[in-house]
This record gives sequence, structure tokens and C-alpha cells, in this order.
Amino acid sequence: MKRTLGTCYYPEHWPEEIWADDARRMADLGLTWVRIGEFAWSRLEPAPGRFDWGWLDRAIDVLTGAGLSVVLGTPSATPPRWMLDRHPDMLAVDATGRPRKFGSRRHYCFSHAAYRADAARMAGLMAERYGDRVAAWQTDNEYGCHDTVISYSAAARDAFRLWLVERYGTVDRLNQAWGNVFWSMDYDSFDQIDLPNLTVTEPNPAHLMAFRRFSSDQVVAWNAAQVAAIRAHSKAPISHNYMGRVTEFDHYATGRQMEIATWDSYPLGFLLDRVPGGDKAAYLRQGDPDFQAFHHDLYRACGQDGRWWIMEQQPGPVNWAPWNPAPLPGMVRLWSWEAFAHGAEAVCWFRWRQFPQAQEQQHAGLLRSDSTEAPGFAEAAEVAAELRDAPDVAPMQAPVALVFDYASQWAWEVQPQGQGFDHFALCFDLYRALRSLGLSIDILPPETATLDGYAMVLVPGLLTIPAALRTAMERAEGIVVTGPRTDLKTDELAMPMPLGPNLPGLAATSVMEETFPPDAPRGLQNGGGIDLWLEHLKTDAEVTERTTDGTAVLLRQGRRAHLAGWPNKPSAQRILGDLAREAGLAVTPLPEGLRLRDTATERFVFNYASHPLDYAGQIIPPAGLLRLSRPS
Amino acid sequence: MKRTLGTCYYPEHWPEEIWADDARRMADLGLTWVRIGEFAWSRLEPAPGRFDWGWLDRAIDVLTGAGLSVVLGTPSATPPRWMLDRHPDMLAVDATGRPRKFGSRRHYCFSHAAYRADAARMAGLMAERYGDRVAAWQTDNEYGCHDTVISYSAAARDAFRLWLVERYGTVDRLNQAWGNVFWSMDYDSFDQIDLPNLTVTEPNPAHLMAFRRFSSDQVVAWNAAQVAAIRAHSKAPISHNYMGRVTEFDHYATGRQMEIATWDSYPLGFLLDRVPGGDKAAYLRQGDPDFQAFHHDLYRACGQDGRWWIMEQQPGPVNWAPWNPAPLPGMVRLWSWEAFAHGAEAVCWFRWRQFPQAQEQQHAGLLRSDSTEAPGFAEAAEVAAELRDAPDVAPMQAPVALVFDYASQWAWEVQPQGQGFDHFALCFDLYRALRSLGLSIDILPPETATLDGYAMVLVPGLLTIPAALRTAMERAEGIVVTGPRTDLKTDELAMPMPLGPNLPGLAATSVMEETFPPDAPRGLQNGGGIDLWLEHLKTDAEVTERTTDGTAVLLRQGRRAHLAGWPNKPSAQRILGDLAREAGLAVTPLPEGLRLRDTATERFVFNYASHPLDYAGQIIPPAGLLRLSRPS
Amino acid sequence: MKRTLGTCYYPEHWPEEIWADDARRMADLGLTWVRIGEFAWSRLEPAPGRFDWGWLDRAIDVLTGAGLSVVLGTPSATPPRWMLDRHPDMLAVDATGRPRKFGSRRHYCFSHAAYRADAARMAGLMAERYGDRVAAWQTDNEYGCHDTVISYSAAARDAFRLWLVERYGTVDRLNQAWGNVFWSMDYDSFDQIDLPNLTVTEPNPAHLMAFRRFSSDQVVAWNAAQVAAIRAHSKAPISHNYMGRVTEFDHYATGRQMEIATWDSYPLGFLLDRVPGGDKAAYLRQGDPDFQAFHHDLYRACGQDGRWWIMEQQPGPVNWAPWNPAPLPGMVRLWSWEAFAHGAEAVCWFRWRQFPQAQEQQHAGLLRSDSTEAPGFAEAAEVAAELRDAPDVAPMQAPVALVFDYASQWAWEVQPQGQGFDHFALCFDLYRALRSLGLSIDILPPETATLDGYAMVLVPGLLTIPAALRTAMERAEGIVVTGPRTDLKTDELAMPMPLGPNLPGLAATSVMEETFPPDAPRGLQNGGGIDLWLEHLKTDAEVTERTTDGTAVLLRQGRRAHLAGWPNKPSAQRILGDLAREAGLAVTPLPEGLRLRDTATERFVFNYASHPLDYAGQIIPPAGLLRLSRPS
Repeated sequence: MKRTLGTCYYPEHWPEEIWADDARRMADLGLTWVRIGEFAWSRLEPAPGRFDWGWLDRAIDVLTGAGLSVVLGTPSATPPRWMLDRHPDMLAVDATGRPRKFGSRRHYCFSHAAYRADAARMAGLMAERYGDRVAAWQTDNEYGCHDTVISYSAAARDAFRLWLVERYGTVDRLNQAWGNVFWSMDYDSFDQIDLPNLTVTEPNPAHLMAFRRFSSDQVVAWNAAQVAAIRAHSKAPISHNYMGRVTEFDHYATGRQMEIATWDSYPLGFLLDRVPGGDKAAYLRQGDPDFQAFHHDLYRACGQDGRWWIMEQQPGPVNWAPWNPAPLPGMVRLWSWEAFAHGAEAVCWFRWRQFPQAQEQQHAGLLRSDSTEAPGFAEAAEVAAELRDAPDVAPMQAPVALVFDYASQWAWEVQPQGQGFDHFALCFDLYRALRSLGLSIDILPPETATLDGYAMVLVPGLLTIPAALRTAMERAEGIVVTGPRTDLKTDELAMPMPLGPNLPGLAATSVMEETFPPDAPRGLQNGGGIDLWLEHLKTDAEVTERTTDGTAVLLRQGRRAHLAGWPNKPSAQRILGDLAREAGLAVTPLPEGLRLRDTATERFVFNYASHPLDYAGQIIPPAGLLRLSRPS
Repeated sequence: MKRTLGTCYYPEHWPEEIWADDARRMADLGLTWVRIGEFAWSRLEPAPGRFDWGWLDRAIDVLTGAGLSVVLGTPSATPPRWMLDRHPDMLAVDATGRPRKFGSRRHYCFSHAAYRADAARMAGLMAERYGDRVAAWQTDNEYGCHDTVISYSAAARDAFRLWLVERYGTVDRLNQAWGNVFWSMDYDSFDQIDLPNLTVTEPNPAHLMAFRRFSSDQVVAWNAAQVAAIRAHSKAPISHNYMGRVTEFDHYATGRQMEIATWDSYPLGFLLDRVPGGDKAAYLRQGDPDFQAFHHDLYRACGQDGRWWIMEQQPGPVNWAPWNPAPLPGMVRLWSWEAFAHGAEAVCWFRWRQFPQAQEQQHAGLLRSDSTEAPGFAEAAEVAAELRDAPDVAPMQAPVALVFDYASQWAWEVQPQGQGFDHFALCFDLYRALRSLGLSIDILPPETATLDGYAMVLVPGLLTIPAALRTAMERAEGIVVTGPRTDLKTDELAMPMPLGPNLPGLAATSVMEETFPPDAPRGLQNGGGIDLWLEHLKTDAEVTERTTDGTAVLLRQGRRAHLAGWPNKPSAQRILGDLAREAGLAVTPLPEGLRLRDTATERFVFNYASHPLDYAGQIIPPAGLLRLSRPS
Repeated sequence: MKRTLGTCYYPEHWPEEIWADDARRMADLGLTWVRIGEFAWSRLEPAPGRFDWGWLDRAIDVLTGAGLSVVLGTPSATPPRWMLDRHPDMLAVDATGRPRKFGSRRHYCFSHAAYRADAARMAGLMAERYGDRVAAWQTDNEYGCHDTVISYSAAARDAFRLWLVERYGTVDRLNQAWGNVFWSMDYDSFDQIDLPNLTVTEPNPAHLMAFRRFSSDQVVAWNAAQVAAIRAHSKAPISHNYMGRVTEFDHYATGRQMEIATWDSYPLGFLLDRVPGGDKAAYLRQGDPDFQAFHHDLYRACGQDGRWWIMEQQPGPVNWAPWNPAPLPGMVRLWSWEAFAHGAEAVCWFRWRQFPQAQEQQHAGLLRSDSTEAPGFAEAAEVAAELRDAPDVAPMQAPVALVFDYASQWAWEVQPQGQGFDHFALCFDLYRALRSLGLSIDILPPETATLDGYAMVLVPGLLTIPAALRTAMERAEGIVVTGPRTDLKTDELAMPMPLGPNLPGLAATSVMEETFPPDAPRGLQNGGGIDLWLEHLKTDAEVTERTTDGTAVLLRQGRRAHLAGWPNKPSAQRILGDLAREAGLAVTPLPEGLRLRDTATERFVFNYASHPLDYAGQIIPPAGLLRLSRPS
């Protein structure tokens, strides 16, 4: 499959007269894809049941006429104002009980059945009309953006009760599963169970965990409704554009419904608010050197057969971060190549032309709002030129795998036990350490049933180990590293009996778990230290790392290893480096800002730093990259 | 006109027996003015329609009998409790939807028509009764204090819809003006438009901007109603007492309705929360060296023919700042003289006597609550003595002007693009830099139609350049400095086509705008740096300052200059100093804490520092001042 | 009376089969007490009026059969879910107007009369059934925990109005007492008076103060109802388990209703959020060296004849602090002995066995949830062994007293005048300084009527000096130290006339009070400095400390002393050390982390540091202690 480029376009924003010129310029730039339609509901159905397909018909004519392939988005993220008159209770409700009003976007609750049906109906109508003319579909837009997965509406409450009936059958079983005897929280009927907000002090973590599972399931069911409506009329592949560090729903589950996973990559927009740790001052104009890569690898695991795209790629300053600098010259090119290095089939820039009004008027496009070329345009053209004789997408299983699990994210949000204990941050820290050693990584879902071919597998902070994964871990030939905080709970976020962890091939029991503030790490005898979390393990395994006061930190038994604490940067690099070498991997410690990624045939080297860096004797300029043959 | 003194007095708080002694002591102290009445509604109309004017009649008798001139305040800032029974929906509503309840003050929504009418009726009754006996009027009290301009009440929502009808005529024109096609935000009728709070993510900036214009207009209309009611019965001049850094309504617009602008100057109260930047630790007991001066110059522009007063001057510790230190001995005198140096007709201390109960019991007066003299009294007496042979108010046009615009303040609050981009803070930073060069400054409204007589004019961060000002800028003989972020938007907070800025006499187009955090300034080749904002300009003008990586920062064309970024303190001083010298001004770089101000005949030198400072060979003690002849 | 040990146990959480073994292990460990029942309402009365006493009967049989004495808790802190159906308006309401929902605990408003009656009824039924079988009672659980004293419910509002009628008789008297003429806040009837939340700006401090007094009174009345219901059927002593730094109700007042005061001591849980000042990083695994001691001394003053217990003692990591480290080995023992050193009759660990579900599943017990011994168990056993030949509880009046007053806490929360002015923090700072000098201290209520036997008495920050205390201060033979901010207000939080303070034996009047931020202390001529608060006093007394600019800070007249400001650590140690020596006390300056406490016959020395410390030639290991004979 060719590596391709594209852009996001809003014909409804511009005079019809300029569409053709736009289409021609897109084609001339070397773009293959144009995504349209996902915010256009008020123009497609200006009043309930009154449709205006004409302009979209013509827009698709113009775009396909210029040789472009259309990705059509369903417009459910922006229901028109009249939809609220139809469904006055369709709005999501925030944790303090306030409806989240019309006036921007994503103003709906995933649990509202009638709006869900209306949205699926609209998707079906579009598929019916355009099913043969479009090359791919996108459902909705950026599920979960603006914290929209979790809603405390009456619709959510009613749906939650039904979900609980489904899960527990009887209220006695629920009381038992949640331990409601504690604090006399027993319920007499499902109708008494409220959403877990506004309680006097923290609600039962089992109640919260159930609500988080439910909330994710509502997104999965919502997406399923649109996918079904589209598939009834179209054979084109379906996708959804995920966001950076949105973890409130199980992306693997939606991923299983669609052919392609895409995501919206805003390296500068994400840097300050969403990236855990890192030297932000050094990367204000480049973005974090590992954050995009992590999501590339994560969403590759969400697409069927690893199919994934960048649906929106930042081409200049955006409007929505706390501050919005311009990318360092070269970064628009670098980000694109990095996506291809991680296996992307397509990179699409958001947006074609800056729109001079409304919320995103300060969001750069490839064109300025006066249609002249914006600074990012030239770099896009450079990538397009380079792609002409570049190899195709070349999938490759990485030598190292890391299991990332949405339910574990919810679990530790519900019950961190120490501020900052976060599954994403833990996985990302270890991912960073692996990357700083020059390793390429696959991210795996907890549903993984085989670990064949991996020299090293990390399973950090996993709430529970599902049966299939447990079997795979038992059979794995590589080194399997568990912990910290892996398998210390049940699915109901209770402590298991006997106590955890119950690790394949490594016997240990946690006697006590403690957490400590960021300014009070525990030092290791071998250097570096442990942050935030330390489980005290009773074990007969070999202990190869200890805190300065003797607590076991790294347990070893054959090709199994377990981390009892959260290693800080130097100790993570040291410990994982040693394990990787033991696993037979070629470890290449990299300077700050330099990153590698291998495909089946290529090695890419990216310089995220703002100064030149040396790789194997080659000087890479700031925001520069190398495309090498993969070392054999 | 003589420079005069006064105080704020509450006869309703004290036994009638001591009024005469109070009046005598005021007169003996050398006061001219006594402001009364503005919080007394519950005592003037104890029940709806039942009036008790007697005590006020007698209080005015006593005060005028002692030779004092009375300023009478309308009491609408504190509607009595029964008013809420009359108008249960009169309360303002906060951004989260909660009514702001009775129990303090300013508990009303400016959009509530019936309360507005009741308040105007009361003003009319007072004017009818006292129109001939009072020397001046004050409407209400401190509009906007406690964030009371913006209200999300039903009254505000209904009034906003009417205002939108007025502004746009049809909902289609509104949809177009706001760009509602973006995100399907189109409205079908004005009745669908809600206030822009509690949306899922940020509302349309055009929606917010309209709401901010509307909110300001409601204050202006509210004040107009009272002014009209008073004018029907009284020829005495009318004033309102503005606050420090309240920017939610257009003070120039209310200013045009009344003869005199006054403001309430609390240098220590404002220091920590309201002053942008500066070395707060150094000025805890003096107040910021530029903050009072800025407001003196601003409100001079709000009074007709530059007529302005201090209506409330801090005489000791207040009760409402995060911490409330005592003024450094000398500051009560210094603040008074500084007001006169900026053209004040009167300085009135708040309050005559400390009230031992309720919210402000820890707020110092000239007298302690036991009627003995508080520490500030002696300094007030010293000023009174010095005034006896001081020259009269001597207005003078300053050599430098700076345009400050309320709508620009709203615009950048709505759409800062980078946290901290604030019109007030930008203007104040440049004002500080000018003051540190020893310059006297006039602040001008955007309605200014001539710039004659100014050697230098600054127009920073102006949303749009109104036609009259544009003409004045074209004709100006002085150096006109625009930017940063001047004229980059339309009135609807959209990007203009062709792109801005459209500057008189200096051709440049902004290709891209970026913002960056406070810890990441961009260095300048000539030293100093740019904070927060940088617009990338395409221009043929001469570039005399560049960032270290070459971006143009100061553009020059003849006597026009444009700043592309927000200069930090050293670069602002250097750049404005060079421009001022080029404009032929005498630049006097001053040490920290020393400030100059010239009137037509005098030069004042103020020492805000807590240590002695030298000015031209004269040592000024801490909190001391020099009164010199103006250098020719 | 013997020093005894105990634990908290929840038979309803465990299979009945293991109760007997649990009881035997408790007895074997050396425990005397077992507290049960306080969260078991849903199991005692599963539906309204349907009781299931059987399991509790059997649990008490098993426990007493093993020789344990039962403390039975009334279960009103956790009303079952059906109680909400009976009383839908029973929930407390937060300051923003939101009901605080079911789903955790303490979900009731103290002002709800019908739930109050139901809770008392339940207490009565339990007393009727178990009055002869239990050794002691506990009412409810941790009043005030989770900020539950203050409620803005309709029930609270209605009760507040009745309380106001009771206090003021007529609304005119209320208007006068509150100074409502200020800002036209006069009321025409009690029905117009709302709770003081959600006002536009701060409400009248007298209004707030009345609401705080009322809120405390509601807790006192609530507890009285349960005490009366229990006393009707049982002669066993009654207690309540107070919390650390909960100050929203008057613990002395509830204390007068019951025989024993107990408290729940969580040294690590409290450290980061509740301890004012101190070096937290040094004590993460030990707790603050003075915080437990302060509460021991405070609650000793709340029990009748000084009777007090630790009802819940932390035995390992808890689950509810921001981070939850494990105690340094030795601390579980140290904390226990420290309680006995301060006169505790009993120390009970919370909880017997960790419960693997619900909110506190990460809260350690003496046993792990799999019934094996947790790390704290061995230290508990060590204490039990040591107790066998330890002396009995040996009460002793301390040489130094400090008056702590709940109403003063409310007063300065209502009107701090400078952020951080807090009665608890002030008293604690001075308590710390006294402890760092090796002194033992009694804490006294403001109702104290004699100060006989105290060599030194501190009365800091007291809102008013009640008549009996005033007389006691006049007659005291020891040195009496008042201030800062003592007696500067009336009971209504107004300024008295004549102005305060009105100090026994030391004439001074406050001319002005000022506050200043933490980074701007005022230096003292003798070293050290004053933080936050300085009252400027007119006095003829001798001044022995002054600020560097000459303001009087320490006034002396005979054996009376007054502090005009809040001394920082070094100056508090110096000033109090000099006064203590003058009072004839043996002052022993202690190194950081070392603390002394004397009983009638013993001297205890505790090492809170994480390194060994020397006391009089003896080396005490980290978390170690010395038990010496009291020096004569």
C-alpha cells in the first residue's frame, strides 16, 4: 500500500466558485485524500426532515473530478440547534449537575437513545446517497474530546441502571460485588442506584469503576449504531478519528468495529497539557519526542490488521492550547515522516484553508484564509515530493511490546492511592525509556492472546491479567516484565483472595502497598530511584534491585521479571536496558531529542531537538530526519 | 478651579447628636466636599412607598450649615431586602447559573428593566427633593465592582436577544456575521440564542464578543436612566465613582453622559490582585508606582473636558485585599498630591470614620471608630495645609498619548490566543515603560479624532481602528506606534479580508501569529526580548528590530512604527526611549520607584520607594515628593 | 486506671465462622476493647422497622466470651438507602447549593429534625437491647469529617431562622447587632434571612458568625439527642470519636455531655493536608512531631475529668491522604506510647483486619485481608507486652496552659483580615514553640474559671475573654501571655467600644491592625520576626520587643505580657523561652524531632526523626522512645 497524503476540507465554508480551484491545488500538491462533511449537519438538514444534499453532491463531484478520494464524515458531533427542540434532554450533564449547553460542539450525551437513533439515521441516509462515491467513512468526530464521554444526565442514569441489571442480575449480587456492607451502602433495588457524583466523600470505587465501564460501553454502542447504518449501504472502509490521550473509552473495542483507526495529531497543541513529564521548554516548537510515536503505536493496535492514518496533522500554530507557538521549520515534514515510519497509510493535514471566523479562526491551515500559501504548505509539498519514490507502507512486528489497557486507566483514576498514579503516565514513562534505548515498540491490547516473536514484553500497572493474556505470558519466550501494580485487584476493583499479584512464572504476594509524594522518591542501591509507588512483596524469587533500605524492587525468575515500584528515568533506562540486552536486543542509547524507528526495510532517525545531533557520524539538523536502510 | 479635599460620610450610621461635631471637624480639617447617601436606601424608603426623608434633610442641613458641599449618591447599589420581594428575578446570575443572592451589595442584574425603573424613580425623587441643595451627584456606586457587569440571568438573556435583533436585523445576518456554519451552529430564530455560558467547549468568539458588547451597553443604559431622572430636577454636575481595573463596561460611554468622572483609589488594596506585573514585594505599603497614575490619566479621559476627582482615597489599611498592610508614613499625602499632579479637582478620603460593624469594620477612616484621629488624619491635614497656597488645577496636554479601548479588552479576553494576552496589561506595560523614561502621558479613547500636539502616540493591541482615529493617525505629526496585535480583526472578532493589519502609513500583512509561555520569551538581536505574542509580518517597511532568529519585530516607515511583539521591560524601555528621543522629547530615565508628572506650571517628583532617592541632586525621602516648577 | 489497648472490628464484614478466632487473637494480642457497630445500620434494620439484631447479639456473645469489652457505636453516620426515601430532604447541601448525595457516608444534615429523631430512636433501641452488655458507647462517628457540619439545606435555613429568633428576639435587635444599616442590609422579618452563601460579595461577618455558632449548636443538639436516648437505658460511659483539626463545632460543648472524649489519630494521614507548617518532607513516615500531642492535650480537655482515648490509631498506610506511605518501623509503637504519655486510658487500632472492598480497601489493619499479620501487628504486640508492667494512667496538671477556642476559630475564618490568620494555626505555632522548649502543656477551654497552678498561660487570638476567664486571668499567679489579636472584637464580631483589647492587668488600645503576606515579615530588633499580623497598640506598658521600625511587639506589665504580632519560629522560641524561665520553668531546648512529655511519675522522650538523636547522653534510635522517671 502506498504512503499517501490528504487534507480536511469544508466546502460549506467557502463560495462554490472556488471549490474547483481548491481541488486542483490539492491534487497539484500531491494529495490523495480529502475529508469532508463531519460538521455540516445544519447545512445538510437545515430543518428536521428537510434535506439539502445538492451542495454536497456538487462538492463531491468537484473533488472526485480532480482525482481526489473523498472521506466522508457523519455529522453527529454537531447536531443542529433544532435537534435540541426535538430532544431537550439530549445534552450531557457535568459532574456538578449542569447541562452542557449548545453553542460549540459535542453537545450530546452518548446515552440518549433518541438522539443516538437520529444520528444513526443520518449516517444511513448519507451512506445510502454516497455509499458508492466515497473512498472511506469517518464516524462522528473525536469521541471524548472536551471530556464528553462521562455524563451525569438522566439518560445516563437510566441507562446505567439497565447496564447494572445486565451485569449483576440481582441487586444482592451487586451489593456483594461492591462490598456495600461497608458504610451501610446496601441497595434494595436497582432503581435506588444513582450516578456516583456529588457524594459526601468518595463513592465506592466499585461503583465508580462500574460507571466508567458503562460510560465506555456507551461510546462503543453509539459507534456501532453508525457503523451498522453505514455498512447497510456502503462497502467503503470505516474509520474514526481518535484524539491524543483520550482514555475514557476503550478504543480497542471501537477499533474492532471498523477497518481503519485514525487519529488527530497536534504535537504542539498537546505538549503542555497532555504529555506526562518531559522537558516541555525544550520542545515548545517541536512537540514531545515520544508522544506522537506512542499514539502511532497505540492506534496501530486499534486498526484492523494495523491499518491506521493521521486524519488531522497540525500544519502550523493551533488556537486551543494555553499558548500556540509556530512549529520549528522542518517539523511539519518531520511529523509526517514519523507517522509513516510507524506504519501510517496516510497523513492528512487539518485544515486546507484557515477559516477566518468562529472558534478556530486562529488555527493555521495549509492555506491562509486569503488563499495564499501558509508556512506549512511548502513542507507538505516537500513530503509529497519525497513520497514519490519512497517505499510503500511496510508493516513489521516490533521486537518489544507493551500492554496498554483502558480499564486499568479507569481503575487507577478511580483509586490512585497516591496522586499521580496513572496507567497512561506509567506506560508512557516506560515507553520513553525503551525509546531512549533506540527500540521500536508495539502496543498491545489486554485481549492479546499470543506474544510470539517479542523479545521483551512489558505489562505495567494492569488491573487484572485476562485469561488469554495470562496464557500468552506463560508461553512467551521473551522476557516478560510485570508491575508495578499489576494484578493487585479484581475486575470489581477489590483486592483478590488470595492476595495478588498472581504472576505467571513468578511467585510473589503483596504485603503492603505505599505511595509517596514526588519530592520524596526512594533511592535504589544500584542508583536511580522509585517514584510514587512501592509494593512490598513476599517472594522467594531472586531480587536484583532493592531500595536503599532493603525493600525488593526488581524480582527475577527465569525470563520473568517484576517491578515493585515506578522507576524514575535513570533507573528505568538502566533496568530496561539491562533486560533488553539480556533479551538479545540491540540497545542504542540515544541523546535527548533523537529517536529511532524501524520498519521492515527502513530505519528512520528523527531529531526533535532545536540543535544539530549526530547519529552514527551523520549530523542531523534541528527538525531533521534520516531515512536509512534497516540494519540487518 | 481650586484643588479641593473631601470625605465620604454615612450619617445613617451614627447618632444624630454627633453629626454637628463631625461636620465641624471636617470643615476644620479643610475639607470642601462630603459625599453621602449612596448606601442608605433601606433608611430612606424602609418599606415600598414609605419614605423617611427627615434624617437626610437634617443631615444635609448640618453639613451645609458647616460650610461643606454635599455630593449625594443614588442608593441603587444596595436595594433593600423588600425590593427582592417586588422583583424576585432581579438578581444577577453567575456563569454557572446560580443567582447571586442578597446579603452584601450590588445584588441586581443591569438588564432587569423593572428594577432599573425603580432605581431611576428613586434617583428622580432624590433629585426632586435635593436638586437645589447638593453641589454634585453620584449615580449608584462602583459599577462592575465584584464582577457584576456580566450576568447570565433570564432578564439578561431576553435583553440580549432584543439587542441582537437590533444589531443584526435578521438571524441570517447574525449567522453570517458569526460564521455559524462552522460546527453547524446556525440559528433559525433569535429565540434560540442562549447566553454563551456552560457550553461544552468554548462558544463562538463572535457570540461571546456580542455578549460582552451587550453587557457593557446595559450598564450605559442603566446609568442613562438615572442621569435622566436627576437632570429632570437638578442642575448640579453628575458623576460616577469608577473602580481600579474594572474593564467590563465602556467607561468612555458612561463618561459622555456626565460632567465629572471620579474613581476610588486604593493603592494597597489593588496591589496584589489587580496590578499586572511589577515588584509587589517592594511596594506592599506604597502601592504600585504606576497603577494610580494610569487610572488618573484614564479617568481624566472619561470626564467631560478632563474633569475628574478621586471620590474615595485610601487613608489607612483596608479590609478587602488578601493582606492589608498600613500605608508607609507619607503615602496618604503622596497619593493625594499625585492625584492633583494628574489634574484632579478633588480628593476625598473614604471614609470619615471607621464603622465598627459589618463588612468593612477593618477599613480605616480618617477617624477611628471611637472618633479619635486615625494615623491618616495627620497626613490629610498636612495636604490641606499645603493646598492653601498651591496653584489651582492646571490642565495640560501631555506630550505622549496612549489609546486604551474597552472593546479590545473584551476581544482579547474572549480570544487571547495565548494565556495572559490582555489589553489592559499590554497598555499598562507600555505606560510603565514611558513613565520610567520620565514622560507624562494622556490616555485617549478609540473615538479620538485628532492627535494634534502629541509628539508620540501609542496604539497597542487595538481590535480595530475606527475611521476617525484612522484619519487622525494618518494626519498625526508625531510618531505613531501601533501593535502588537493592532487591527488584526474585525468588529465581529473575525479575521478581515484582506488580512490585517491595515495600518495608516505602514504596509504590512500578518502571515501568522504565534504565542508562547512566559518562560519562553524570544530574544532580540539588540537585547531584551519579546513575551507572549509575535505576529509574523510580510512587509516592505524597514525593520529595525529582529528576534535572534530573524523575525521582524519593529517596522518603520517615516514617522510610523509598528511592534510585532510584546516587548519585555528592558526592550520596551529601549525601543520607546529611542522613539521618544526621535520625537524630540526629553527623556529622563528614572530609578525604580521614582516617578515624574508635569502640569502646565509644575513638575512633581514622587518617591514610591521605601528608601531615599535622588532627583537632580535633591534627596527625596521614602514616600516623599518634590513640587518644582515645570522645566521650560 | 490501667492503660489499655483495643481495636475496631466489623463482624458484619466477615463470615460468622471466623468471629471466634478473631476474638481469640485479639485477646491473645493483649487487647481489652473492641469497638463495633457504628456503620452497620443497613444490616441492623434492613428495611424500615424490620430489625435483625441476631447477628449483633451473637457477635457480642463471641467477643465478650473471649474476655473483650465492647464499645458499641450508634450507626447514624451511615443511614441506609431507604432512609432517603423516608426523608428525601435529609441531605446536607453544599455552599454552591448542591445536595450532597448518598453513596458514601455522613449523608445527612444536622438540622434535619426527623432524621435526628430517627437516629436517636435507633440509639435508644440499641441501648435498650445492649445497655447492660456493653462497656462503653460511641455516638455516631467523626462528627464533621468530610466538612459535614456546615450545610445550606432548607432544613438548616429554617432552623437557623428559629435560632436567630431565640438569640435576638426581634429583627430590630438583629439588625442593630449585625450593623445591617451598612449597605442597606436591614431585614423586616426573620423570614427574610437567608443562609450566608452565594452572596454577591462577602456577607456581613456577623451573619456568617451567627451561622457558624448555629451550625456548631446543631451538632451539640444532635449529640444530646443520642446521649439522652442511650442514658435512658444504659449506665455505660458514652464517648464520641473526634477527628484531627476538625474545628467546625465546639468539642468542649459535646464533651460536657459525655464521660469520655476519644479521637482518631492518623499521623501520616493528617500530615500533608491538616498540619499547619512544619517540615513535612522530614516526617512523611512519622507524622508531625506536635500534631498528635496537640490533639491529645486538646481532647483531654474535652473529656470529663480529663478522660480520653485514642479510638482509632493508624497501624499502617491509610488510603485517604494525597499520598499514603508506610509508617517508619517503630512509629506504631511510638504513637501508642505518646498517647499514654499524654494521659490516654486506651489506644485502639483501626482496624482489626483490612477489608478488601469498598472505599477503604487500601487502609491497613492489624491483619491483612487474608488474616495474616500485617506489619503493624508486631508493634502492637510489643506495646501490649510493655504495658504489662507499665504504671497506670497518671494524670498531672501541666505547668503551662494554652487556651484554645472554637468560636475564635470561626471568627478568624469569617474575618481573617489577612489570608492565613487562623486560630488553630496560631495556637499550634505557639504550642510547637513551647514543646521545642521541652515543656508539657494543658489546653484549656475559654470557659476555664481558674488558672491556679500554672506557671505560664497563653491566651492567643481569643475573640473575646469570657467573664470567668477574665477573673481567672486577673487572679493568676503565673505569667499570662495574651495576643496577638486577643479581645479585639465583640461576640458579634464587631469592634468593641471602647476599642480593645481590654486586658486584665495590662492597659493597651489598638490604634490600627495590619496584615502582610508570608513573604513580607516584619523584622524584630532582637532577632526573628513577626508574620502576617501586627496590631499597633497605644500603651503605657513597658515594651520589650519592637519591630525594626519601632512598633511595639511585646508589652509587659508585672506578670502580664501581650504579643502584638504573630512571632515566627525563632522569635516565638526566644520570647516564650525567656518568659518560661522568668516563670521559673525548666526550659530544655530540644533538637528537631525530639519531644518530651511528663506524667505525674514519668518522663517520656520521643524521637520523631529518621536518624538517632541524643537525650541527656542516651541515644534514641529513629522512631524510638525513652521512658524515664520524672525528674523531681
